[in-house]
Amino acid sequence: MLKTLEWTPAGVKFIDQTKLPLEEVYVTAKSHEEVADVIVTMVVRGAPAIGVAAAYGVALGAEKSTARTIEEFQPEFAKICARLAGTRPTAVNLFWAIDRMKKLFATLAAEKVSMPTARESLLAEAHAMYEEDIAACKSMGAFGGARMPAEGGVLTHCNAGALATCGYGTALGVIRSAVEQGKKIKVYADETRPFLQGARLTAWELMHDGIDTTVLCDNMAASLMRAGKIQAVVVGADRIAANGDFANKIGTYNVAILAKEHGIPFYVAAPWSTIDMETPNGEVIPIEERPAVEVTHHGGKQLTPHGVGIVNPAFDVTPAKYVTAIFTERGTLEAPYGEALKRMAGK
Amino acid sequence: MLKTLEWTPAGVKFIDQTKLPLEEVYVTAKSHEEVADVIVTMVVRGAPAIGVAAAYGVALGAEKSTARTIEEFQPEFAKICARLAGTRPTAVNLFWAIDRMKKLFATLAAEKVSMPTARESLLAEAHAMYEEDIAACKSMGAFGGARMPAEGGVLTHCNAGALATCGYGTALGVIRSAVEQGKKIKVYADETRPFLQGARLTAWELMHDGIDTTVLCDNMAASLMRAGKIQAVVVGADRIAANGDFANKIGTYNVAILAKEHGIPFYVAAPWSTIDMETPNGEVIPIEERPAVEVTHHGGKQLTPHGVGIVNPAFDVTPAKYVTAIFTERGTLEAPYGEALKRMAGK
Repeated sequence: MLKTLEWTPAGVKFIDQTKLPLEEVYVTAKSHEEVADVIVTMVVRGAPAIGVAAAYGVALGAEKSTARTIEEFQPEFAKICARLAGTRPTAVNLFWAIDRMKKLFATLAAEKVSMPTARESLLAEAHAMYEEDIAACKSMGAFGGARMPAEGGVLTHCNAGALATCGYGTALGVIRSAVEQGKKIKVYADETRPFLQGARLTAWELMHDGIDTTVLCDNMAASLMRAGKIQAVVVGADRIAANGDFANKIGTYNVAILAKEHGIPFYVAAPWSTIDMETPNGEVIPIEERPAVEVTHHGGKQLTPHGVGIVNPAFDVTPAKYVTAIFTERGTLEAPYGEALKRMAGK
Repeated sequence: MLKTLEWTPAGVKFIDQTKLPLEEVYVTAKSHEEVADVIVTMVVRGAPAIGVAAAYGVALGAEKSTARTIEEFQPEFAKICARLAGTRPTAVNLFWAIDRMKKLFATLAAEKVSMPTARESLLAEAHAMYEEDIAACKSMGAFGGARMPAEGGVLTHCNAGALATCGYGTALGVIRSAVEQGKKIKVYADETRPFLQGARLTAWELMHDGIDTTVLCDNMAASLMRAGKIQAVVVGADRIAANGDFANKIGTYNVAILAKEHGIPFYVAAPWSTIDMETPNGEVIPIEERPAVEVTHHGGKQLTPHGVGIVNPAFDVTPAKYVTAIFTERGTLEAPYGEALKRMAGK
């Protein structure tokens, strides 16, 4: 299986997603600062993957620390967490993962464990999150796969695949599961401007698995829907609010509206770590604005005239009313999402 | 004023729209075949512009012909027209312009005029179409400008500007007129994948005129609408059917649905030569499929993995029900469009 990220003796090893699909290059982050850089520059991206990357970043920070006692390490630990939390604002998995490391650290500090023990425990926690992420993908994949059409076109946006997780994928996990169930799925992958995660990453990993994949420009989705080529839409999420509104890659809200207009079911697949019960609705999810150069340039070449205004929000918010169902590792949720989420959160 | 295309003693001179905005390069087509090539390769594009380009192509074919009599020229004339008509299938202005040249030719042939007279008449007809196109843009601009908000954001898709016409533009003519009327318009230009007419051409020509312009990726439109930044949408058209359905650059249908969902008026601006009363509805408008390389590559660099499926329809069809009004040089049309078009066709 393709390894999006991996703990190695030298540090955290990442497949460089800015270089795919034409170059398969790996980079190893040798400090928590380098892990932070790798997240900011989108060498690694995808909400579940950046959560686990941050957890490994914390473990790496502990490993590299010269502190002799956990007490001495405490202020450094706080800085490491702050640095990693300051990388990207929208995906809640990042904060969830760091919080989980902080909780463990608090226990370790209370127990006054030795630094070697602390290092070992923090790394073990990151490893656990890695394994849990793959298991969650497989589980939501099975729930979602059952809802995919027996035969037909499934549209996806961005890359919510193996490359966005520790393996198997969320939205693409649903598609993989459907294919494993013998369903005849033709995937339509929005290229997903400006970073082209669909054209580059989704196309690459699905072709790697031999799944029938066609890339379209984002603005072609409506005409394919009208032509009857799309039977379902499935996307990932970067944060799901307590009422079911969710943030995902810019353009997801467009697709949700188009699906509604054509009567096509619109599904979201995400691990429970993407659900943020502290965020009441989508209006208050912080949306990252990325550098204009991602829109103005491609392959080092400028596309737009000098000085023109540019917007580049990395995410948008889709209100819950557009969502047919949400697949998680705990099961499938349907509207009203506020109640369904509260009920399943207790599980 | 910027010259999209121009008759010169050496041939038909075009600003090379594949090189804009970073290079302002001109190419001169010295034969009707070269005019056809310039249309196919999108050195010139935009429905009204390719109509007039084809008319000049016919005039150029007549000029270059060695036929001594109009009778001798007749089969060659038919071939010239067929070559130019075979360039692009969707924009009806192309066929409208060639038909107009054919009608004139039939009269000239019936009158058995000399070849010098035929050449002169055909060129005069092309010149007339050039001038009429600019006048039509100014006229529809005035009708449309009156419907623009006094202040606010106007979204446009592709380039329906001076570069798509002989000058002033259709959708951008409406915007220019609104600005001339003192309205405070902030233009949001969809970049318009894959050919990036919005990012490259609309941004360039509006900045040239000092109009406030911001480029967005096509998939960002819905979130800007939801944020209240867009008060109106105005686009051009490549063919308007007798019932008001219309073909325009791929992605227009997406925008129409998003506008409807957000209660934003959606306007179309086009000269009467874009209206095809012979085409009953949008379902039967032929849609050009362009080469996959426009999607897979940028600036010579490949974006997608080898062998992935690609779709690249150059246009889509927006049903009339999404259209708030159509601006033409004859006036503003509103639903029901079948009746309104029939009524105004008689004018």
